[in-house]
Amino acid sequence: LDEFSLIDRIKTAVRARAADPRVVLGIGDDAAVLDAALGRIAVTTDAMIEGVHFGFDLCSPADVGERAVAVNLSDLAAMGARPLALLFSLEIPRSMDDGVVLAVMRAAGRAAARHSAPVVGGNVTSTPGPFGVTVTALGDVAGDAFLTRSGARPGDAILVSGPLGAAALGLILLRDHPGHARSHPSLVRSYRRPAARVELGMTLGSAGGVHAAIDVSDGLLADLGHVLDASKVGARIDVERIPLPRGARRVSRDLGLDPLDAALSGGDDYELLVFADPAEPAVQALRRVGTVTKARGLTLHRDGKRMILPDVRGYRHRK
Amino acid sequence: LDEFSLIDRIKTAVRARAADPRVVLGIGDDAAVLDAALGRIAVTTDAMIEGVHFGFDLCSPADVGERAVAVNLSDLAAMGARPLALLFSLEIPRSMDDGVVLAVMRAAGRAAARHSAPVVGGNVTSTPGPFGVTVTALGDVAGDAFLTRSGARPGDAILVSGPLGAAALGLILLRDHPGHARSHPSLVRSYRRPAARVELGMTLGSAGGVHAAIDVSDGLLADLGHVLDASKVGARIDVERIPLPRGARRVSRDLGLDPLDAALSGGDDYELLVFADPAEPAVQALRRVGTVTKARGLTLHRDGKRMILPDVRGYRHRK
Repeated sequence: LDEFSLIDRIKTAVRARAADPRVVLGIGDDAAVLDAALGRIAVTTDAMIEGVHFGFDLCSPADVGERAVAVNLSDLAAMGARPLALLFSLEIPRSMDDGVVLAVMRAAGRAAARHSAPVVGGNVTSTPGPFGVTVTALGDVAGDAFLTRSGARPGDAILVSGPLGAAALGLILLRDHPGHARSHPSLVRSYRRPAARVELGMTLGSAGGVHAAIDVSDGLLADLGHVLDASKVGARIDVERIPLPRGARRVSRDLGLDPLDAALSGGDDYELLVFADPAEPAVQALRRVGTVTKARGLTLHRDGKRMILPDVRGYRHRK
Repeated sequence: LDEFSLIDRIKTAVRARAADPRVVLGIGDDAAVLDAALGRIAVTTDAMIEGVHFGFDLCSPADVGERAVAVNLSDLAAMGARPLALLFSLEIPRSMDDGVVLAVMRAAGRAAARHSAPVVGGNVTSTPGPFGVTVTALGDVAGDAFLTRSGARPGDAILVSGPLGAAALGLILLRDHPGHARSHPSLVRSYRRPAARVELGMTLGSAGGVHAAIDVSDGLLADLGHVLDASKVGARIDVERIPLPRGARRVSRDLGLDPLDAALSGGDDYELLVFADPAEPAVQALRRVGTVTKARGLTLHRDGKRMILPDVRGYRHRK
């Protein structure tokens, strides 16, 4: 397919069934035009490169499309923003089958539609390098009802929206123990198709007692560190309170791994890490794992005893 | 530099001197938050890949940064939008010197500041492929005061904002006749540092008699074709009225080229192609090159005589 035919087929693949009234002008012009009815826009962009962030040996094209959407919507969730629209910039190796590109984009379109985030634009270019998808996600925000990394306060409860370490264990299974992978479909799925906490993020964004949030993409300790740095506070984490995914203990025992290591340092879970007044109703269903302290620095406790901080693999992204 | 240090230096490089009150939350959180004071947002994204869209043999790092900004702001100009913010997604080969990346981004930051388009976010990833810059540009728009490709009407004047073919001639000089290139600095500069018609676009966007616009990135005939298709109309172009860049005739004669070919099919000029009521005051300073016709199809005339349509190289993008 030439570029224009491919773009036409991508447009069809990502077209949502019902037109979104917020899209004044969609794909096909010099820019998209969107209604910013709440008066403020949240915007984020992230790239996924084959061989760096994923491989087609471990992920299907549909996984890649789903994941590209989830990673970006997760950033909006961490802001408490309502998804408004997505743009896709695709870098396509000359040798790549257009069918793979279309499978990626059909899955991306489905994931986008599930979260009411219409695909409104993008571009396609060939590349001598690997396949890449750069997504830009726009959300809308009312007034100051958004969540930064810098709002955590001493005394805040630190909470997580779900189990941590599943994606890291799923990746280890797929990459290093493919024979075991099929016995742990939910861990594998957590790696291949993480779920962005979009609805929860919107609820938290409009709850007055929620002071800060971040999504767990680099690992709990790394992302916690980003918030502590930005908020100029410290934290105590009670590691036995961190929820582990189902099957994590068993698979870790079988493979000689530490499930706590995956939970503390494994990235790509896309759960939300939330900093809130402990009495805030909107966080009562979340699991509290610690407390913000005035004293800077992070301490980990296990059953009340202070731990030596483990080697924090997640703290620095792979460049 | 590791990823976080590089990001810190990029942040410093692109930080504008004066804070923009429209930026509620800038670089450094999960997303940027922007005031959409006019109620509507225009958004576009475009990628520039080394070896596909530019080469460091022909362009300096500063040229690349300037160009990445201009290409995207030009899309906003073609919508009649006011620049609001930019995001940069950088793909950096492991072997690349961080100094080159910083030189690209310093120039990008200067170009962004010149057009009041603060850099509010982005991301950095390593890649086994070539260097790439994907820019997302946001603009704001009031009500229906924006320009699409689909609004051209029979009887509209077709106008261009400046000379065409300069960038194509500049590229040919640099690539094929480097010895001649230094004698034609303005052509070379048109290729390396095209100027986005941002101010003009905003003026046209709020002028009631302007019905459609596109920026000339693929070449006059190709971009004209996009508007004619979208508007379901045809056009007559009087080619002797197309403004040629200074020096184009002489350099074309010296090198055995046809300056009209560069003007019709050469891309990357980023002038605006405008479709408007001939009496609209806002277009009186632009050069009229033709008229929209009810009959579909495009005819070219030279001194009143119909031309055989030349081989339209620009009409299909290189994929």
